[in-house]
Amino acid sequence: MKIAVFGTGMVGQTLAAALFAKGHTVTIGTRDIQKALANVEPNGFGMPGFGVWHKANSLINVATFENAAAGAQLLINATNAASILKILQDIPSSMTDDKVLIDLANDLDMSNGMPPRLRTSDVVGQSIGERIQTAFPKVHVVKTLNTMNCSVMLNPTLVAGGQSTVFIGGNSATAKVYVSDFLKTFGWTDIIDLGDITSSRATEMLLPIWLKLWPVMGQTPYNFKIAR
Amino acid sequence: MKIAVFGTGMVGQTLAAALFAKGHTVTIGTRDIQKALANVEPNGFGMPGFGVWHKANSLINVATFENAAAGAQLLINATNAASILKILQDIPSSMTDDKVLIDLANDLDMSNGMPPRLRTSDVVGQSIGERIQTAFPKVHVVKTLNTMNCSVMLNPTLVAGGQSTVFIGGNSATAKVYVSDFLKTFGWTDIIDLGDITSSRATEMLLPIWLKLWPVMGQTPYNFKIAR
Repeated sequence: MKIAVFGTGMVGQTLAAALFAKGHTVTIGTRDIQKALANVEPNGFGMPGFGVWHKANSLINVATFENAAAGAQLLINATNAASILKILQDIPSSMTDDKVLIDLANDLDMSNGMPPRLRTSDVVGQSIGERIQTAFPKVHVVKTLNTMNCSVMLNPTLVAGGQSTVFIGGNSATAKVYVSDFLKTFGWTDIIDLGDITSSRATEMLLPIWLKLWPVMGQTPYNFKIAR
Repeated sequence: MKIAVFGTGMVGQTLAAALFAKGHTVTIGTRDIQKALANVEPNGFGMPGFGVWHKANSLINVATFENAAAGAQLLINATNAASILKILQDIPSSMTDDKVLIDLANDLDMSNGMPPRLRTSDVVGQSIGERIQTAFPKVHVVKTLNTMNCSVMLNPTLVAGGQSTVFIGGNSATAKVYVSDFLKTFGWTDIIDLGDITSSRATEMLLPIWLKLWPVMGQTPYNFKIAR
């Protein structure tokens, strides 16, 4: 499948590599290709700058957001906080309408350093998932994968033998089936449909406890499991 | 142990009965004893009014908040939203100072009906746990048990054979050990210490997803498990 991944950071890199390894044709979208490729500084987590990473992953395409979207059958938002809203505004809607957008962003406020704070609260319309869907009603937004480390997103067997939970939410039942089937190809088995896109608030609000667990768990991959 | 449970609602009833069954001496605290005992209307979940419940559980004491606290070695807050702040203000501090208070409240806003919204967001000091600890610095607040249905709180084997997770948070390491040991007597095995009382924000913010899961899970008891 032709997949566009928006975002050149740690999450974008990790997902793009996992998608490519699975045989998909992957294009990473970015605002400025030359600037992205010139970035050789590691990030705060020790992940290589995008330019270094891309030398080792040169079969993954890099394009403008617009060109990445134009050729894609599936869009994945791996950008920071609410950046996606501006990105989608700048792309002709014909390149995103009627496409499925997997949104895995969380509205983290890094302005006070680490750990970040979460801007989303339980107010109708405040999650990133809801804001994208409201602003771009013809895009089929499916909120998923935003409740775990990017290493786990397409590699669920890293945690508890693949028995942990991934949540999905969105207004289009068809899009959710499509995304569920896609997730299953990566080994997800416990996929819980939380309902419409308003459930984005619920999953985005998991971030504070995910962050509190981080120092307790150390480097160990971990994830939420809904035990029942 | 002599335990005071603040609150006559569904959570208070369920906990008091489980504590009593375990051999503890339980006193339920309420603002107005006669009014509480005169309440015979079932609540929205079909739980009996407190007066009806108490007829069937007459060995559990009922007292004013003040008298319940005075005789107790352990305090449990099972009141609604932020009611506990006013309750503690009205009790002489000598009856609560240096005692452990297990706080399992969540700041639910029912003003727009069901499902409730959560008032807590990721702003420093905004959780109920933090607000109690700040207002009553000599009370050893331990936030725990607030991330599950009350049926599971003291009966963890209801979910996944007892393998789900309970979180604790608080500023006093001694109080957390005390509460952990207490929880273990009820069968809890996966107790994760999230750090100081600021972690209350993180656990209180689980409520929106807990509520979204409710219709999906139906009547089945369920709980979070941190898979790793």
